[in-house]
Amino acid sequence: MGNNAIVGQSGGPTSVINSSLAGVLQACQMRGAEHVYGMLNGVEGLLNERYMELSDKLGSALEIELLKRTPSSFLGSCRYKLPDFYQNPEVYEKLFDILKKLDIGYFFYIGGNDSMDTICKLNDYAQQIGSNIKFMGVPKTIDNDLMLTDHTPGYGSAAKYISVVMKELIRDATVYGNNFVTIVEIMGRNAGWLTAAASLARGEDCEGVDMICLPEVPFNVDNFLVKVERMQKEKKSIVIAVSEGVRLPDGRYVCELSDDARFVDSFGHQNLTGTARYLSNVVAKNMDTRTRSVELSILQRCAGHLSSRTDITEAYQVGGAAAKAAFEGITGKMVALKRLSNDPYQCTTELVDISKVANFEKKVPMEWVNAYKTDMTAEFLAYARPLIQAELTPIYINGTTQHIIRK
Amino acid sequence: MGNNAIVGQSGGPTSVINSSLAGVLQACQMRGAEHVYGMLNGVEGLLNERYMELSDKLGSALEIELLKRTPSSFLGSCRYKLPDFYQNPEVYEKLFDILKKLDIGYFFYIGGNDSMDTICKLNDYAQQIGSNIKFMGVPKTIDNDLMLTDHTPGYGSAAKYISVVMKELIRDATVYGNNFVTIVEIMGRNAGWLTAAASLARGEDCEGVDMICLPEVPFNVDNFLVKVERMQKEKKSIVIAVSEGVRLPDGRYVCELSDDARFVDSFGHQNLTGTARYLSNVVAKNMDTRTRSVELSILQRCAGHLSSRTDITEAYQVGGAAAKAAFEGITGKMVALKRLSNDPYQCTTELVDISKVANFEKKVPMEWVNAYKTDMTAEFLAYARPLIQAELTPIYINGTTQHIIRK
Repeated sequence: MGNNAIVGQSGGPTSVINSSLAGVLQACQMRGAEHVYGMLNGVEGLLNERYMELSDKLGSALEIELLKRTPSSFLGSCRYKLPDFYQNPEVYEKLFDILKKLDIGYFFYIGGNDSMDTICKLNDYAQQIGSNIKFMGVPKTIDNDLMLTDHTPGYGSAAKYISVVMKELIRDATVYGNNFVTIVEIMGRNAGWLTAAASLARGEDCEGVDMICLPEVPFNVDNFLVKVERMQKEKKSIVIAVSEGVRLPDGRYVCELSDDARFVDSFGHQNLTGTARYLSNVVAKNMDTRTRSVELSILQRCAGHLSSRTDITEAYQVGGAAAKAAFEGITGKMVALKRLSNDPYQCTTELVDISKVANFEKKVPMEWVNAYKTDMTAEFLAYARPLIQAELTPIYINGTTQHIIRK
Repeated sequence: MGNNAIVGQSGGPTSVINSSLAGVLQACQMRGAEHVYGMLNGVEGLLNERYMELSDKLGSALEIELLKRTPSSFLGSCRYKLPDFYQNPEVYEKLFDILKKLDIGYFFYIGGNDSMDTICKLNDYAQQIGSNIKFMGVPKTIDNDLMLTDHTPGYGSAAKYISVVMKELIRDATVYGNNFVTIVEIMGRNAGWLTAAASLARGEDCEGVDMICLPEVPFNVDNFLVKVERMQKEKKSIVIAVSEGVRLPDGRYVCELSDDARFVDSFGHQNLTGTARYLSNVVAKNMDTRTRSVELSILQRCAGHLSSRTDITEAYQVGGAAAKAAFEGITGKMVALKRLSNDPYQCTTELVDISKVANFEKKVPMEWVNAYKTDMTAEFLAYARPLIQAELTPIYINGTTQHIIRK
């Protein structure tokens, strides 16, 4: 079996996915991997023999520090769905030929549900052909929707970003003292973890958001309007956090009621957008108030300047734990985070079967939503608050944050 | 003449308008003002006798530090346009009665063009009636469009925010390695200073934006498309910064080509939005590429967590300089920033006639735009770079930035 390792990044970028890359790289180097390669644009790039030697570019401690502070995937990403083996065995043969040529013994893939599907399939194939290559999944997604892990690296930083900017948006929205409804659209197609994080804005120095609309709760436009009218009678500036993925009782996305263009990616995911704009127009037509819609858009997943140190550290740890397990001979697993306690927050890693993670989605539990379905409970706050703790100071050069990129 | 001072904030919020408030407050206290009052919601609130004693709430050094880090207007704001005297003398009489009752000797107004109009009118009236109250304007606007000042407090922080998030957006947009056009909409109705700041993203660690569209340059949709097509042939991920205020040669705003609702405020300003979305749809319809539109929206003016220390310091200084001048008997002036040199950056304050600032707008000089009208020149970078230098560390408590608010 080869003594080299290869690592790829897949799916949507996060602020801390590169910290996991650093964790895999340094743990493999420490365990004596001769070469650690990075796939360029994930498995899709690897199939075209696109990869790089990581030690060349990421050899110094400063480069590792910059890597931890660089958002988006250093190696590039893909949304490539590996075909089933019986549909296209050539893809598997080609991939394993490349791995053999590079003398790979350890294969790491940093990603979400879809990426774990890739690891699962490659591991199954390896078992069939008697390959000794170890395949490990490293969790990553701002959506926090992976099963069997307390939370996912990437979520804490996105949640911190959302809570900080919601506080700033609330300050901005109160400034004129007039009737005003601000609707903020937050990512999360089916799971409302990110939208729920808007509840973290409330505190002694902030009124907090006035309503939270999760995709887990069927959305009724008329009821929404009644609630907003009622709130506006008691408070001039109303700020609402709404998930891009809220759906009508009949299953259609609310944003489908607007006339925006949408596209579908190769995993069949719709690009959802325009929910806040649509709802803000509904409010403007029906109420005597100013309205504004804000889409946090991709800023919530790439704001490396405002990441959670807890998140960055855990992202590094799951990378390292994956390398440790693989070098100990384990394969077909994903590293998960296991919380020991909320206060003090204590968390460790464990290994879970990749087949029980791939293609599943973890929703926000309904017990963590209040009776009116408009706010999160104290249990959610106790869960989420530790994940946004502490900061990793950005390295500013000449006024802007410094990154590291492939050249 | 009274020995008390009163200060108000007006117009759109910025990240550092409260630093100017701190500067006025502390400089007035130091000069022996017995009471320093804050108007709530500017002159409009004052007309309803809404004000507060500032020393009560902002008495400690920690409160001042929090104030400097709290975005949006601590005192609330207004977009109230003071009527001309001959149209409505009662408003002036009422306002001066209130000032007399509060024993005001010094009146400060922190704001942009419209706010300077208010100071100008009040000062003219004071001269007519022989009032001794000193009226001083303190500049503030993210738009950087005030005349007679090198730049405006608020611009540096917004420019820093824009340059940092453009770097992050560019990283995010390159991740899949596919053809991809990202169009980012930036504030600035008539002046392109903020959009120009996107040019600050370029550096050793960043490709920079590929095109900048200022409102000062007439916009042709067909030419735009030709340029994007040409760029896409040489580079997969194209990122374009476009001002919300770009106009067709016939004077219509580009966003008017889309079908979004718009409203007009009491100064007759249109709420412009949808420019990036419209252009991104045009590109999607005409080219074989993925597209995305991002509106930086109000985040660019309220991101207190990412402000420029240079900007915060200068915002404080102009507040202090206004108090100094007023206590020395000067009236009817605005404090301006006067740059002495770029490198090393040196800047001082001076006083300018308020009548030469009110209601005028300073545009980006065409010499600072390249020959193709798609990028900024080195002269612009030398002008803007010093304004985004250095940071004021946010005070994080429990994972989010701490603010100070009126209770």
